[in-house]
Amino acid sequence: MTSNSNRQFKLAERPTNLVTPEVLQLTESPLPVVSENQALARVKYLSIDPTMRIWMADMPQYMTTLQLGDVMRAFGLAEIVESRHPEFKKGDKVMGLTGLQEYALITGKETRAFQKLPSIPFLSDTNFLGTLGINGLTAYFGMLEIGKPQSGETLVVSAAAGATGSIAGQIGKIHGCRVVGIAGTDGKCKWIKDDLGFDAAINRKHPDWKEKLVAATPNGIDIDFENVGGEIMHAVLDRMNLHGRVVLCGLISGYTRQDPALSSLGQVLMKRLRVEGFIILDYASRYMEAGQKLGMWKMTGKIKDKQTVLQGLEKAPEAINMLFEGANIGKLLIEL
Amino acid sequence: MTSNSNRQFKLAERPTNLVTPEVLQLTESPLPVVSENQALARVKYLSIDPTMRIWMADMPQYMTTLQLGDVMRAFGLAEIVESRHPEFKKGDKVMGLTGLQEYALITGKETRAFQKLPSIPFLSDTNFLGTLGINGLTAYFGMLEIGKPQSGETLVVSAAAGATGSIAGQIGKIHGCRVVGIAGTDGKCKWIKDDLGFDAAINRKHPDWKEKLVAATPNGIDIDFENVGGEIMHAVLDRMNLHGRVVLCGLISGYTRQDPALSSLGQVLMKRLRVEGFIILDYASRYMEAGQKLGMWKMTGKIKDKQTVLQGLEKAPEAINMLFEGANIGKLLIEL
Repeated sequence: MTSNSNRQFKLAERPTNLVTPEVLQLTESPLPVVSENQALARVKYLSIDPTMRIWMADMPQYMTTLQLGDVMRAFGLAEIVESRHPEFKKGDKVMGLTGLQEYALITGKETRAFQKLPSIPFLSDTNFLGTLGINGLTAYFGMLEIGKPQSGETLVVSAAAGATGSIAGQIGKIHGCRVVGIAGTDGKCKWIKDDLGFDAAINRKHPDWKEKLVAATPNGIDIDFENVGGEIMHAVLDRMNLHGRVVLCGLISGYTRQDPALSSLGQVLMKRLRVEGFIILDYASRYMEAGQKLGMWKMTGKIKDKQTVLQGLEKAPEAINMLFEGANIGKLLIEL
Repeated sequence: MTSNSNRQFKLAERPTNLVTPEVLQLTESPLPVVSENQALARVKYLSIDPTMRIWMADMPQYMTTLQLGDVMRAFGLAEIVESRHPEFKKGDKVMGLTGLQEYALITGKETRAFQKLPSIPFLSDTNFLGTLGINGLTAYFGMLEIGKPQSGETLVVSAAAGATGSIAGQIGKIHGCRVVGIAGTDGKCKWIKDDLGFDAAINRKHPDWKEKLVAATPNGIDIDFENVGGEIMHAVLDRMNLHGRVVLCGLISGYTRQDPALSSLGQVLMKRLRVEGFIILDYASRYMEAGQKLGMWKMTGKIKDKQTVLQGLEKAPEAINMLFEGANIGKLLIEL
């Protein structure tokens, strides 16, 4: 069942756009010898995910950076073909970070990166790479922990026919949302609408897709499950309602180009930052509470301030410009 | 005490950059006649705030859009000079949206927009426009409700010598944060460091300010109280720690130019959206819970999926590119 060699894709060069033959090089190595507390697994299925493009690139990372010469990182399903490891025996099916190769050596240290596949009726093994794997988990926690869908709200999902987006949209339907998917072909749109039950599907390659997005979201958008970024995200943000939530799950439109406009959002994604727009009006009912606290801090010297005061109503335009020219310090006032 | 006319700045044209004489026109109108349930107030101080530039512009708004010809909106302090209103009597000091004019007519409908100034020892009236007014309230709720400062964390404030930023930083100090301010002159930096007690102050006009920001934040940045946007925000995001919070309070660097790169963040600000980066690794301890739920949904047909399967390890580079070319539908797998 095992051959004597292991074909592997190694990261030979960092990509600047799509993956070229120079980026991933197919090499052949001898099969590793299995030592004490190790097991050898034959890879059966490899999961191909957009995040692999991040792993390859010279951009902010959320896992350890791959070095040139490393076997390319990938999720996969594999079967143990030889084991000297107490947790795995020959024939066990496992899933984990197999890498882009035919055989993965499971070492003691890496054990936690691999787990045995449960055998569940009605579920195929490959479901554990998708719907019950990285994509399903991403859709589940992204939707429930950040999107927090409420019945009657409108959810928009970009890359909606992808492995993650298609599940995110269906989780929205389960929670009573109106769900609109954005995808790139009529076939994808048909699938998410007719088979998955999305309320509307928009082909972003149609010239009037933005008008269709407006028409499909008559009550605006409450949740954006964002996989794409760029122009698509911007059109969705245009339709967002007050206090909407953006689950920033991916920025796939930016991974294959060096787009500085995406770099801030790239940081938000990689570091799981929370960016929240803030306008004081939302707290009007609590001004008294804050005023008391601020007044106390001010009177006890814990807060100090400074004023720049101009004289005369006619100074107003000049004063407004001072703010943008950095010409004032502290509070800028006009005394009449 | 009252004159017979009221000088007013009216919005005559929408600004494209700074405020020009064409944008705000100084006009003179007769003093309004005070009817039943109205009061007339003489404006004493006008608050000059960056948000006025938003109010004037043709950009997303968080209050009703000003029409051309309207008196320019502004916060102010005023004194009642004539009253036929049950809540106000002559001599009362009030604060509210007076507008950029010498006299404000308080009508029944607008009553809630004006409130009487409390008289508090040690506080001057103008404090109610700044530290205890819009700026202090903004700093207070922005820091406590979104920033959520924890003792020992690092807070960075941009426009740190402004009316809001200077209070936000001091609230950070009160809560035990290391506070670093970014400002545009050495004088401002000296004020926030020496007088307000910021731990460090960085003049963003010094050529090596980014290196200084790195040096001033040895443990990274946990909270960004963001007033500026653009290049400054990007440098701060570069230093943010995992799960950091960005209080998006202003994007002053973008108000005076039509910068499309700021437009997405502009939507986040105006609509008080919450954008949260999401990587599934953070939920590793709860995979079991999600897997059970997803498995149940899958088995009961509430979630459907689809796979695109390529054959052979050598297809991996092509498969990765398919993701970015929109060539797959559902989960993309390689079978070995």
